[in-house]
Amino acid sequence: MTQIEDNQPEIKDTPLVPIEKVVSLSKRRGFVFPNSEIYGGVAGIYDFGPLGVELRNNIKRYWWWSMVQNHDNVVGIDGATITHPRVWEASGHVENFVDRLVDCKKCKRRFRTDHLDPENLEQHKCPVCGGELTSEPRIFNLLMETYLGVVEGDRMKTYLRGEACQNIYLDYDNVVKSSRVQVPFGICQIGKAYRNEVTPGNFLFRQREFEQWDLQFFVHPSEMDKWYEYWKNLRFEWYKGILNHKDRLRFREHASDELAHYAKKAFDVEYQTVLGWQEWEGIHWRQDWDLTRHSEYSGQDLRYTDPLTKERYTPWIVETSGGVDRTFLNLLLDAYEEEPDPNGKEARTVLHLHPWLAPVKVAVLPLQKNKEELVSTAQSIHQNLRRYMVSQYDDVANIGRRYRRQDEIGTPFCVTIDFQTLDDQTVTVRERDGMTQIRLPISELTMYLLDRVTWK
Amino acid sequence: MTQIEDNQPEIKDTPLVPIEKVVSLSKRRGFVFPNSEIYGGVAGIYDFGPLGVELRNNIKRYWWWSMVQNHDNVVGIDGATITHPRVWEASGHVENFVDRLVDCKKCKRRFRTDHLDPENLEQHKCPVCGGELTSEPRIFNLLMETYLGVVEGDRMKTYLRGEACQNIYLDYDNVVKSSRVQVPFGICQIGKAYRNEVTPGNFLFRQREFEQWDLQFFVHPSEMDKWYEYWKNLRFEWYKGILNHKDRLRFREHASDELAHYAKKAFDVEYQTVLGWQEWEGIHWRQDWDLTRHSEYSGQDLRYTDPLTKERYTPWIVETSGGVDRTFLNLLLDAYEEEPDPNGKEARTVLHLHPWLAPVKVAVLPLQKNKEELVSTAQSIHQNLRRYMVSQYDDVANIGRRYRRQDEIGTPFCVTIDFQTLDDQTVTVRERDGMTQIRLPISELTMYLLDRVTWK
Repeated sequence: MTQIEDNQPEIKDTPLVPIEKVVSLSKRRGFVFPNSEIYGGVAGIYDFGPLGVELRNNIKRYWWWSMVQNHDNVVGIDGATITHPRVWEASGHVENFVDRLVDCKKCKRRFRTDHLDPENLEQHKCPVCGGELTSEPRIFNLLMETYLGVVEGDRMKTYLRGEACQNIYLDYDNVVKSSRVQVPFGICQIGKAYRNEVTPGNFLFRQREFEQWDLQFFVHPSEMDKWYEYWKNLRFEWYKGILNHKDRLRFREHASDELAHYAKKAFDVEYQTVLGWQEWEGIHWRQDWDLTRHSEYSGQDLRYTDPLTKERYTPWIVETSGGVDRTFLNLLLDAYEEEPDPNGKEARTVLHLHPWLAPVKVAVLPLQKNKEELVSTAQSIHQNLRRYMVSQYDDVANIGRRYRRQDEIGTPFCVTIDFQTLDDQTVTVRERDGMTQIRLPISELTMYLLDRVTWK
Repeated sequence: MTQIEDNQPEIKDTPLVPIEKVVSLSKRRGFVFPNSEIYGGVAGIYDFGPLGVELRNNIKRYWWWSMVQNHDNVVGIDGATITHPRVWEASGHVENFVDRLVDCKKCKRRFRTDHLDPENLEQHKCPVCGGELTSEPRIFNLLMETYLGVVEGDRMKTYLRGEACQNIYLDYDNVVKSSRVQVPFGICQIGKAYRNEVTPGNFLFRQREFEQWDLQFFVHPSEMDKWYEYWKNLRFEWYKGILNHKDRLRFREHASDELAHYAKKAFDVEYQTVLGWQEWEGIHWRQDWDLTRHSEYSGQDLRYTDPLTKERYTPWIVETSGGVDRTFLNLLLDAYEEEPDPNGKEARTVLHLHPWLAPVKVAVLPLQKNKEELVSTAQSIHQNLRRYMVSQYDDVANIGRRYRRQDEIGTPFCVTIDFQTLDDQTVTVRERDGMTQIRLPISELTMYLLDRVTWK
């Protein structure tokens, strides 16, 4: 496992955070709501609230900047979630993207065979009531179907994409022809995918509608090992860079019997939460599998011609594929802390989110809300800051309560405007994690904050 | 129609741009590709290529900043595209979101009755061949269906959202409870919607999978008129601010027989292209229709309690609802120009995109690619600039060709590093529209460009 120097302040070692804490905070402060909740909800489908959408957009933008805009040899696309149905035959999903289910004849519970203890499965015993399980598993495809065209005969059955990356293979040839990229190069995408999960659950961890980020990096076969290592290490460092509990991140190498037939190796980036060590992103050796399959099924020649050597070949692919929603969930679990008060008062709930990703970057707080000069100065600071970052103006309740309110949503900085401000044009900047305070001239405030909330 | 002072350089009046020009540029330079093209494509579904995704993201981010982050009383959400099926009964879509189709018995062509000349419809005459049309229209619902759950009995038919705004009504109560907003306030969302269009077409204009942006602004009934006018004017000015051909923007007021029964008035923001004057965004008077319907269908109390007066009422809604993809298409049609060369050489193709929205903000061009010092200086400038904006490094072909390449994709600034740079640390900054050039010290370059590409 790669080690890097860590310049960020370490936070105290804390126990793994129960999911319920984060579910409750998410609803109470507007990060995540159950979808269609007024109608009783839909299992495995969620909406992102006012703070959730800002956090999620920041996460996606930082990934996009790191992967696409900061790499000369990587470009992005944004493909549709509905594609031609043949795509899912070529990809193997129509045939293989299945769950196997057995039922308990006694208690009527339903189980995925891959979630059952092998012993229970072999003895056909229900793990809950001990009843008899059906012996022959029923097979269900996870692709969600839909229909294009409205008139009999024109109606075409197709699927919502079961994984987002397929668009990259579909657009590969158009990208090569339009974008002046040369192997080795990458194509990135962030987008929704849909799976008809039999057992959605654990909040955002396993959803039916979710978002993925993918890089497909196209290389000459002779350079596959080199680029595989490059992206494997870069992705690990990327996740590490936005975590507090860096020791909860690890690689898991797939055993040989887990590997797809075309894969020489595979690594998962795993993160430890109260759910255990779980996959966050996969680093996949896809070889020429995808382009060859789509070439066969479409009848199109998807080979690449080297502009110098004129060699004609199907590029091999290194894939890095992760979950936006798992990132969102893992970062909340990583950031959440109930910090005991040294004076025995109410514990401080704080989200130690990286300042680059925090949904609100700064709160502007006039010491009192009924003093005209404090208010107008605070408003002018707020209006100026919001050109550059998300700023929240809050004048309700005492300063201590307002700090707590911002701590709970992860706002890294609070700026307080007090009577000294009116004398010397300085403000107090209070930092979330250490609760340290400094005084700064108003004229230096924007750059001080921008330096700390802009990624690099 | 509101008039504002216009500080931007006017571009010459040019004829309306044929759609084909923009389709061709989009494919050639990687803005838009037909989805699943290697499988023959899917009607009305598109993918966005490397430049398209950057342009589209910039458009969405600027809207989000203008509407959400720059308003104290507006918050955002990001809801799922799949919801509980009752949502679409409450909204009226299951019953009313339909096309009526008639067929020609002679030539077998199929027509939407609302696209037919009333005379043809009345006489049952085919407008193409004069044959007889079927007399009774067949009715087709535009909602795209899908199924949740995989096991018989659990399988629930639902729909991909036919309009994105429904999530806002669904989450309204959760937002009120979690976000400390008080009426008047707004909730915004950008997201995909799906329609099983019978006649998709005109490139991005009418798609089956597309993206919308919506504001739902909740007000006390007594303030409805005031806020309707506020948002109507603000949205018009917003569009005007990013257009070259501002005279091609207008309001169209709906006639009384076009209005929904709850609407006192309705205005479309329309833009003139080669397709005629077409709707870009609607400013809708929704009254208490949506919250009341969802309250009835869900059995939940969605009334609001005024914190001061304790009055309990269902807020009225001003909606501004526009199309992300129509914005994308209209901006390309607005920006595209083939500028004749005064010396009779090859015409210059240029996209006059607003610098805030252009996919690439700056191109960094070393005068020659085989001079080590030019290259290292250019690379250092490029690596510094890309922290703040999308920068493209290009060292292939002569400077004139490189300028043309950037003009065609709308890059507002090109920075050339030449031999004088090595002497005095200045560079040439060349501006796209006027093709004017100035020399700037490298030390001033970042701020010079940032000032011009950052919205405000």
